[in-house]
Amino acid sequence: MREGISLAVVRRLPRYYRFLRELMANDVTKISSKELGVRMGYSASQIRQDFNCFGGFGQQGYGYNVDYLYNEIGKILGVEKKYKAVIVGVGNLGHAIAGHINFEKRGFRLIGLFDIRQDIVGQEVGGKPVMHMDELEAFCRKNKPTVAVLTLPRDEAGAVAKQLIELGIKGLWNFSNGDLELESDEVIIENMHLGDSLMTLCYRITDSIE
Amino acid sequence: MREGISLAVVRRLPRYYRFLRELMANDVTKISSKELGVRMGYSASQIRQDFNCFGGFGQQGYGYNVDYLYNEIGKILGVEKKYKAVIVGVGNLGHAIAGHINFEKRGFRLIGLFDIRQDIVGQEVGGKPVMHMDELEAFCRKNKPTVAVLTLPRDEAGAVAKQLIELGIKGLWNFSNGDLELESDEVIIENMHLGDSLMTLCYRITDSIE
Repeated sequence: MREGISLAVVRRLPRYYRFLRELMANDVTKISSKELGVRMGYSASQIRQDFNCFGGFGQQGYGYNVDYLYNEIGKILGVEKKYKAVIVGVGNLGHAIAGHINFEKRGFRLIGLFDIRQDIVGQEVGGKPVMHMDELEAFCRKNKPTVAVLTLPRDEAGAVAKQLIELGIKGLWNFSNGDLELESDEVIIENMHLGDSLMTLCYRITDSIE
Repeated sequence: MREGISLAVVRRLPRYYRFLRELMANDVTKISSKELGVRMGYSASQIRQDFNCFGGFGQQGYGYNVDYLYNEIGKILGVEKKYKAVIVGVGNLGHAIAGHINFEKRGFRLIGLFDIRQDIVGQEVGGKPVMHMDELEAFCRKNKPTVAVLTLPRDEAGAVAKQLIELGIKGLWNFSNGDLELESDEVIIENMHLGDSLMTLCYRITDSIE
């Protein structure tokens, strides 16, 4: 991990990136840390602290150049990387992700989809034919994807993740319930916990109405 | 918001809840803040600090009773609340959420699904027939749902959210791209940003392999 940069800071970068894109869409060319903070719900000093992790991006009292800041954060995030990605598990969730997520704008290129169900194999999803899981190994050896999206049932996720890591996968975007607990230190796992978000909503509603 | 409890602490509660459930499944009955910290990647003092926000839950040097802690955190989260929820937008993502998310275990009860597409209206999804959006207003006035899951395109999300708030919805679980910017202070919005997670993964992979 880059020295002195916590995962908490890293997780805020995509949000900055989104807000800056909105500003650009609204023809805002310059913004102070204070104004940006008001829009995003952060303090100005938090924002300056975050940006200082990456060298600053602007002069105090002058404001940030929105365009420049957007591009710099994009570079830090690696949106131009085009890492090859596969989706494993093409049920409704895999379908939704293949269809709605713009991988290209987020540093990835979707190159293959896999499932075990015969009624899905061969179908086109997101413009690509779904392959059978039996083809996964040969496909990975040939095409060397960097990332796999796991949208398969929890019971199957662990074994498939292990296989993918053996095949050289460097990152997993995990939608299967539960944190993947893997022994390999060589893989980055980004767990999407929909249930955690739903429980947070439950707490916040209770807190707001009681 | 409960005094002195930040959203950051609240967001960790579902994760504690998950880890404690795992411990229970493995017949662990007692755990120290240190051991729990090692498993979860938090420091022991972070854990004690978090739990102190809610009154403690245990004695230092003795360890926490896993069962008790699990139940207390469940109560704080409100997993027994059974708030009524509707899903608006029954494409692949709405399908996936209706089919895979256990609302009942997370404080909610799914009572209705809505879409505008004639080929989807009338279909059974998650054991319930999908209704037409034209029926949304009458349904809400009669059944008074507390929460709506927004799984519809971003362009439509804003207008639908506004309508739902007028109909008395207190919370939105938003999967439409982009933060919902609403003027109402009376609604809690929990935004699910899949794209942010994907960009975080991109950063972390780059950071790990370069």
